[in-house]
Formats: sequence, structure tokens, C-alpha cells
Amino acid sequence: MVIIGGGFGGLYVAKSLGSAPLSVTVIDRRNFHLFQPLLYQVATGGLSPGEIASPLRVVLKNNRNTEVLLGEVTDIDPARRQVVTNQGEIPYDTLIVATGATHHYFGNPQWESLAPGLKTVEDATEIRSRVLSAFEQAERETDPERRRAWLNFVIVGAGPTGVELAGALGEIANDTLRHDFRRIDPREAQILLVEGESRVLPSFPADLSAKAEQQLIALGVRTLAGTRVTSIDSLGVTVQTGDREERIATRTVLWAAGVRASSLGKVLAARAAAPLDRAGRVLVAPDLTLPGHPEIFAIGDLASFTHQGGKPLPGVAPVAMQQGRYVAALVRRRVNGEAAPAPFHYVNKGNLATVGRNKAVAEFGSLHISGFLAWFVWVFVHLMYLVEFDNRLLVFTEWVYNYFTHNRGARLITGQTTGPAINTDAHT
Amino acid sequence: MVIIGGGFGGLYVAKSLGSAPLSVTVIDRRNFHLFQPLLYQVATGGLSPGEIASPLRVVLKNNRNTEVLLGEVTDIDPARRQVVTNQGEIPYDTLIVATGATHHYFGNPQWESLAPGLKTVEDATEIRSRVLSAFEQAERETDPERRRAWLNFVIVGAGPTGVELAGALGEIANDTLRHDFRRIDPREAQILLVEGESRVLPSFPADLSAKAEQQLIALGVRTLAGTRVTSIDSLGVTVQTGDREERIATRTVLWAAGVRASSLGKVLAARAAAPLDRAGRVLVAPDLTLPGHPEIFAIGDLASFTHQGGKPLPGVAPVAMQQGRYVAALVRRRVNGEAAPAPFHYVNKGNLATVGRNKAVAEFGSLHISGFLAWFVWVFVHLMYLVEFDNRLLVFTEWVYNYFTHNRGARLITGQTTGPAINTDAHT
Repeated sequence: MVIIGGGFGGLYVAKSLGSAPLSVTVIDRRNFHLFQPLLYQVATGGLSPGEIASPLRVVLKNNRNTEVLLGEVTDIDPARRQVVTNQGEIPYDTLIVATGATHHYFGNPQWESLAPGLKTVEDATEIRSRVLSAFEQAERETDPERRRAWLNFVIVGAGPTGVELAGALGEIANDTLRHDFRRIDPREAQILLVEGESRVLPSFPADLSAKAEQQLIALGVRTLAGTRVTSIDSLGVTVQTGDREERIATRTVLWAAGVRASSLGKVLAARAAAPLDRAGRVLVAPDLTLPGHPEIFAIGDLASFTHQGGKPLPGVAPVAMQQGRYVAALVRRRVNGEAAPAPFHYVNKGNLATVGRNKAVAEFGSLHISGFLAWFVWVFVHLMYLVEFDNRLLVFTEWVYNYFTHNRGARLITGQTTGPAINTDAHT
Repeated sequence: MVIIGGGFGGLYVAKSLGSAPLSVTVIDRRNFHLFQPLLYQVATGGLSPGEIASPLRVVLKNNRNTEVLLGEVTDIDPARRQVVTNQGEIPYDTLIVATGATHHYFGNPQWESLAPGLKTVEDATEIRSRVLSAFEQAERETDPERRRAWLNFVIVGAGPTGVELAGALGEIANDTLRHDFRRIDPREAQILLVEGESRVLPSFPADLSAKAEQQLIALGVRTLAGTRVTSIDSLGVTVQTGDREERIATRTVLWAAGVRASSLGKVLAARAAAPLDRAGRVLVAPDLTLPGHPEIFAIGDLASFTHQGGKPLPGVAPVAMQQGRYVAALVRRRVNGEAAPAPFHYVNKGNLATVGRNKAVAEFGSLHISGFLAWFVWVFVHLMYLVEFDNRLLVFTEWVYNYFTHNRGARLITGQTTGPAINTDAHT
């Protein structure tokens, strides 16, 4: 069996099959599993990358039937049942493709360098450097208009990630950095959260969207719902609300809007006639296989799965984990010669989004909560799911310390080994 | 007053003058102070960069008389008393230059990309990636000779940093990674520590050098003293011991040998007629000023200071800290119109070097200790000196966990956002 991708989907397949009489190979470009739900905390200096990443070999150490291979998959050949990688070909009997999703700029690929998204560790440290450097630039800038532009931050997309980023930026400006500068008052920073739909957190019930918006406003974030971004350049963004256009001078734009399935979706379409949705996700059968290919599964953000009569499942970690466990159980039944299981059914245990310290919203069926209690549940759930115990202990230590001191210790501008850490043209 | 450099020297000047009636500007290329004595732990996956770095603005937050400026100093004009930076000119009445040292390849600058040194956070994550990638490459390599080369590691220079790196690599190979791979046994790795002088840790007494060598051997490190490196290329190194030459096939060479003072030494020589030693360090007067320039101080690794009849002080953190405090006291006396203090005198409280878990050597005057006790003192001293409390707590948590589990949690291969994490030519 070959699993492509060591995210939540792929990892949960492998972990659930640790004792099965199978030979499993997990292929990933990176040597670590990344706990993406906390990546925004790296981007905002609250955690270090090492605290939310665990080496795949460590996570799978006790699976004696599992090999980890670092490599890039370039093609899949279902006829010969081979995965083609930059390390050579790997044969499979069963293939699980779980390569996730990447940013999507809605036909404006030139925006990518202007408005980085948040998918990888490198994205997070890049965003961290841009945000911190913007305050440094503002401190040095004497022209009021240019200083203003350095203190304006625009976040595109008000799903959970956009809301988390905006809330964290609000806390950084109003709290963390408050006494750090001598010439600027970081509280003058303006954080703008732009959302195309009619409210923030559009995937949540309307009452929780309203709560989240109140929490954002309390952190100094201005929300612009029903608003599209029409242009981004190095000096600002133009947004359109209905017929009204607004130009916002800013040097820092963060992208939390569109995602597109990984390019292996296209490979599966070309090689195995997999049907794709508009976002490039594989429309999978009820048992998560590709139509006509019972030996190939697509799960997680790469897959589009719809319960009868429902909406496609969202691209969140719990979906990927449950799909991973389902595929593992199905494969185990096949190995044992048992009947196929019932179709995959996602059990939604609840939806959580955090805005900041003591601020979050949570939906558990008809139970809607917000504020401290929702935030406490959020902290608890995320600590429980952190894959490796040492990360959990470290993250807990850091959170407790940050909570009581209002500090964010990992505020490093890194990535450039020579020359100035900052220069005026660095972001243009 | 202007302080160039936020390392131990510059930081201790600023911290000691927090309440003085002065206006202080600290200029650094980076926005953080780096606790360099623990940088080798980042390079070997034991700690994360954020755990050994503190934002300069946080460390100096309570110094209301102190500004931090991120920028690169390009020139110094003593006649006009201006520091020239890429952010414009900064006037000074008193100038403290504390820009430290960088790697030096003894006239072989082409070795720099082949054998990275360990001075910056980026150096450390680069070394971490190379070491971890080498094991990954070995796991994939089927040719025994090429696999052997991936499992050979050469460290050039057996001062404290070289010994720490070699010991940590020994632990990684024999302990940390032991169960991580399926095709290779990481214990087959060979770690070679090359030293030009006649023994490891040449700055320590001979009996402690012998102890350290025994500890290294116990970790599987082979030491080659009295040996020079004569060539480095992408496939190996050539070393010469006496008349005998040896070629070692290796893909991973780490540089812990020569250092050279930062380029501001040359600027001071050209602009203020500062005398330099062979390593480019400024030969300072007994009060750490430049001869003929009582308003300019050079401290830390940039300075060469010799007590009457002694050897120049080594480039270690305690020297920089004590020099920083001395300069602060001297400046304070000047401000108060008091007489100049006695010349700087370094109080050597002891020398420590760690080899690994429960393995270290320590010299306190005539008291020489090694093994667990020396290691315990090393841990205690390094935790005490970690500048910010939150780092201390995190590092302690991580160490306790790593100690009991033999784990190293921060084993991430990072730095490449696209393409494979590894390819065969990555290090050539």
C-alpha cells in the first residue's frame, strides 16, 4: 500500500493500519507532519514551527510495517500500478492520495507574492517576518502617509483562518507590541478583514458570525463583508462593496481566501478519469474510492465528498481524520476477506473558530457558545489532538506563559542570512 | 550613545544603562538577541530557534531611554561622529561597536557553501536540514559506497562548538534515530572530528581534553587531532596528519574552525586607525577604547584584549558580558564626572563544554570535573543565563522531556517551499 501525503488524512490511514499484515509506504515532500490548525500561531509569533510539527518517522516509529519516503510524486500510472516520484517508481496494490490543497488566487496568480497564503511552515515564517517588519518600517518612517500604509494590514477571506489571523494581529497591535516602540503607537494599526460572502465565518450559523464579528471589533479589527478584492499591488489593495470601490494603502496583505486541490487531482483526472469539481477536488464514490478504481482512494482536502442531499464536506482536519480511519478499516476488511463497509459518513462533532484570548465561537449541533467557554474548549481540543506528546507539553507551557504575560515569544524576523533584515523595497 | 550589535556585549551595555540619563540607540541587522551557546542544539534538532532567541525590543522594553533600530551599518565617520546605516546616518557622542565575529575559511572561501559554519539561526536550520537529509538519502541509496558517504559526517574544528556538534551527532545516530529507518541502521554513521591542534578542546587543560575525547569515543565519534583539512569538495574531504593524507568520502561537512572579526573591524581600522590582530579583531586599550578615540569602544568577539603578560581573551559570552558591564560603568562615571575606573579585568569563573547527555567537562581554576556533575553544571548555567524567562521555561520543559525520552522534537527539514525537500544534487 502506498499513501501519498503525511497530513491528517494520510497519517490517520497509516496509524490505523500499524498492526495490519500489510507493507505500507508513506510518501511526503516534507519530513514532518504539520498540525495546520495552529499554523496561524506561528505566523503571529505565538508558537515556533517545531512546536506544531512532528517528524513523520517519529509519529510512525512503532508501525513496523510502515516505511517513510521523502520525495515528490510527479505522476501516477494506474495501468501499471506505479507511483512515479523523483526518487524512482514505487509499485502499489492500494493507493491513498491525500495531498491536500494549496492557495488559489482566482485567476490572479500575480497576487501570490503580494499576498502570501498560509499553508506551509515557510508561509508562516514569511508572514511573521512581513508583519513584524511592517511595524519596524513604521517606526522608522517619518512621512505620515507612508507610515500609515505600513500600519494598515489587510486580510482577504474571513473563514476560520482569516478570522484567526485578524484576531491575532489585533492582539499584537493592541497588546503584545504596546510598549515595544518609541515613535509609533502600535495601537494605531488598522486591521481590515475582507470577506466576499455577506458575513464573517460564513460556514457558521449567523448568530455565531455576529458574535465573532463583535469579538473582532473589540480587538480593533474592521470587517468588510460582501466585499471583493479587485486589485492588489505593492502599495495597496482595491476592494469593491456592491458598486462602491475603496482603495486602501497597505504594505501587508495576507491571503486566506481561495484554496485549490493539490495538482495530483489533475493527475488522477488525466490518468484514472477521476471527475473533479471546480476547485480541482476529486469527486469520490461513497466509499472514497475513485469511480472505476476500487484500489485508489482520495481523502482529505483533495477529495470532494457529499452525503446524499447535502453540501460537500468542508476541508477541515476532522473530515480528513475520519476519512483516514474509514479507509484503514475498509482496507483491513478487504485483507480479511470481509464484506465492504457501509458508505463513509462524516460525524460532525462540532465547529470551532478562535478569535483571540478568551474569544471564540463554537457550534455543537443546536448548542451555540461563544466567549471564554468556547475559547476554553478550543484550547482543550487543540491540545488533545496535537499528535505528539512533547509538542503538547511545549505548546501548553507556551500558552500558559503567553496567557498570563500577554507575550508572544517567537517574534523572529528570519530567512535572510546576509544583508539587512529589512529594506524598504523588501516587500515590493 | 549608539551601540552597534545586540549580542551579549551590546545587550549588556544597554541593559546596564537602562536607568542612566542618556539616550541610547541599539542598531542590529536582526530583530532578536540570539543565545549563541545553545545554537548547536538548534542545528541538531534539540531546540527550536524561537526557544533561544528573544526579540531585542522585548529584552529592552523597560529601558525607556533606549531605542532599537533594525538596520545594517555600512560605515562609521569618527570625524563627524556619525554611524552610516542603510536607514540613514545616526549621530553619536559615545559609540560601542560589538558586532562579533563570522566564519573564516583560512583563504578557502569556496568551502563556505560546502561546509557551513554555525553563527546564525539560518546556519543552524541549514545544518539541521543537511544532517537529517543525509540520513534520508542514505535510506534511499542502494549503492553501498554512496550510502556510506551519506552516513559519514566530518566536523572541522574541535573547540567547544565542534565538540558539541560531534557529540550531538553521535547521539542522533546511536540513539535518537535508532528506530526511525527501515533500510539503514543509523548507528552505522561515522562521525569524524578533525582538529589542527594536538588535542580536542585545546583551550582546556590536557586532562579535560582527554576526558572529552573518551566521552566522544563513547558516542561513536572518531577524533583526528594534529590534522589539517587540505581540500573539501561535494564528495568528500582530504585531511593531512603529519605526512599522511587521507581521503574521506562524505556529503556532510560542518565548519567549526576559524572565526574572523566582523567587517566593522576593518572600518574602524580605516576610519579611526584602529590596530587589528591577524583575525581582524580590534586591539583595544586597557579601558576597551580605541587608541586615540576615548569615545569609541570595541567589545566582545570583535575586540582583542590581553591582560598584561597573558594571552588574548577567548571569544566567549562571559567575556562579552563582563566587557559590556565594564563599558556601562565607565560611561556612567563619565556622565557623573567621576574619575576613570581601573582597566578592564576579566574574571574567569570557569570553562564549560558539553559533549552530550550526562557528558561534559568543566574547569573552575584548579578544580577539574567531568561527566554527570559537569553536565549538570552546564545545564544549570545555561538555563540561568537564558535572557528571557519564557525561553528558560520552554527550554527547561524541552530538555526534561528530551532527557527522559531520548527524543529531539525539532527535527524539521525546512527552508524550501517548493519542489522536493531533498534532491540528490542539493548539497553539491
